[in-house]
Amino acid sequence: MSAIALGIHGGCGVMPREEMDEAGWAAARVDLARALRAGWGVLRGGGSAVSAVEAAVMVMEDSPHFNAGRGAALNIDGEPMLDAAIMDGATLAAGAVSAVGRTRNPVRLARALMDAGESVMLTGPAADRFAETHGLPVVDPDWFITDRQRAALARMKARRAAGATATEAEKHGTVGAVALDADGHLAAATSTGGFTNKPAGRVGDSPIIGAGTYARDGACAASGTGAGEFFIRHVVGHEIASRMRYLGEDVATAASRIVFEDLAPYRIGAGLVAIDGAGCVVTPYNTAGMFRGWITAEGRMHVATHDEVFVVEA
Amino acid sequence: MSAIALGIHGGCGVMPREEMDEAGWAAARVDLARALRAGWGVLRGGGSAVSAVEAAVMVMEDSPHFNAGRGAALNIDGEPMLDAAIMDGATLAAGAVSAVGRTRNPVRLARALMDAGESVMLTGPAADRFAETHGLPVVDPDWFITDRQRAALARMKARRAAGATATEAEKHGTVGAVALDADGHLAAATSTGGFTNKPAGRVGDSPIIGAGTYARDGACAASGTGAGEFFIRHVVGHEIASRMRYLGEDVATAASRIVFEDLAPYRIGAGLVAIDGAGCVVTPYNTAGMFRGWITAEGRMHVATHDEVFVVEA
Repeated sequence: MSAIALGIHGGCGVMPREEMDEAGWAAARVDLARALRAGWGVLRGGGSAVSAVEAAVMVMEDSPHFNAGRGAALNIDGEPMLDAAIMDGATLAAGAVSAVGRTRNPVRLARALMDAGESVMLTGPAADRFAETHGLPVVDPDWFITDRQRAALARMKARRAAGATATEAEKHGTVGAVALDADGHLAAATSTGGFTNKPAGRVGDSPIIGAGTYARDGACAASGTGAGEFFIRHVVGHEIASRMRYLGEDVATAASRIVFEDLAPYRIGAGLVAIDGAGCVVTPYNTAGMFRGWITAEGRMHVATHDEVFVVEA
Repeated sequence: MSAIALGIHGGCGVMPREEMDEAGWAAARVDLARALRAGWGVLRGGGSAVSAVEAAVMVMEDSPHFNAGRGAALNIDGEPMLDAAIMDGATLAAGAVSAVGRTRNPVRLARALMDAGESVMLTGPAADRFAETHGLPVVDPDWFITDRQRAALARMKARRAAGATATEAEKHGTVGAVALDADGHLAAATSTGGFTNKPAGRVGDSPIIGAGTYARDGACAASGTGAGEFFIRHVVGHEIASRMRYLGEDVATAASRIVFEDLAPYRIGAGLVAIDGAGCVVTPYNTAGMFRGWITAEGRMHVATHDEVFVVEA
């Protein structure tokens, strides 16, 4: 029996405190805690790391507080276009989907694709059709759209029309989870709407195995959030694993190296959650805040949006 | 001034000799030589590695002999659905496209996307629209379809209907190029139609930066061909670079390790072309044949489909 552990993120960004009242931040923390409990329940019941990260991410997809599933950022055409991936560190099996428009929980679709064992990645309407034929809930695209994201798109388009560019605060947000199960296996999952006003057809790092999502027993599981293009170019998840495997770095050193050194020259927002085979969870980020949470073997649950970390009942 | 060098592949597979008469194999070698000359002309003129790999891959996309661009394998719906990527080892800039259906040269689209400097990856009809708005030639999907690929799809569907699964010979084929330019920079590009009768929406490793396409100065450039799902799961291109950077392996050792050890347990077809900063080109493959070619600093050109390597006029 291995120790079990779980870590999640709900996106990083400038996240000005005045953007929401304290009740808003508290509500987001409540949903982070719900996501942790969902994954933790799986792990405590002897379930797999894969099922735990899927369960945790599904809660954040269904919550309107995060940029994934319901509440996802809208693209330039006003549409939700969702990306997600999941990876099993025990087998290196993986599932990934991009440009999903109707599947309620893209991470479940990624999981179903992985379990089917043929394609690793599907894109576009065919991915939604795969969900339908595999009995997963599909919804009208309006289901994903919240007033907050509609307003964010309108603000962004107005500012673009006035010649301004997107702020970092508007560009980020993604959800993800990493877990270590009682059999000692690692897994990672990530789900996102990308960023507000993103180009039609744009795919970020979340569904790119090795970049925004990666898991390998004996090294780490990792899920990223931030300016995805740079996570793709730096193959972030696999880079952390490689530094651990080949340079003998620990997960904190390898993850910090990427976020605070490799990605620093680009002056972009970046964060991630990573876990190693001993259940050590790290959540480095270079922005003002990152929605995040973790539970370690002794069962103590932590959630945070900015500097302060809240310990809550697991 | 650095030495210049160029390597290409046109896909690996069982490639039974009796599938084509000797004239057919010779015709494919002629187009491999044309692709090499196109890239070599760029390098000799002082052009960048990025432009060289783009030029070489474009020749193979336009040739009906390879599974990319014109002559690409058709998916289960009888459609060409093309993936491609390009990466600049000097800057780690990259461009990647998946599920392209109308852009004549997907590698040019990937290059235009990289040069635009915003999204790294676009998918689906939006990628074709990007090509149109950037002045790249778009064609009717019929332009890509050859009698040979139509017949291959019919054969495959007939065999599936009879309960048989695809042979390795039918599953492979992709084109790619790697180059070292006079300024010492590396680049890689890959383009593919996937495999005959592939699921709608399936994306392989070719457009996944770090998997089927990767380049980093100081390490290597690599382009893969084979059962793409396993290249994604093993993050093949970035794995070669990591072994070179962190374990000090040379490109031949690192590339062979992936093809003959890491991927061996899956019993899948796999091949790749890789190059290091000294211009050493390697082309490991575990199948009966791989379309391939290379030119090294002294200007001698080699092309091959099976064991024999032909030296031809550069």
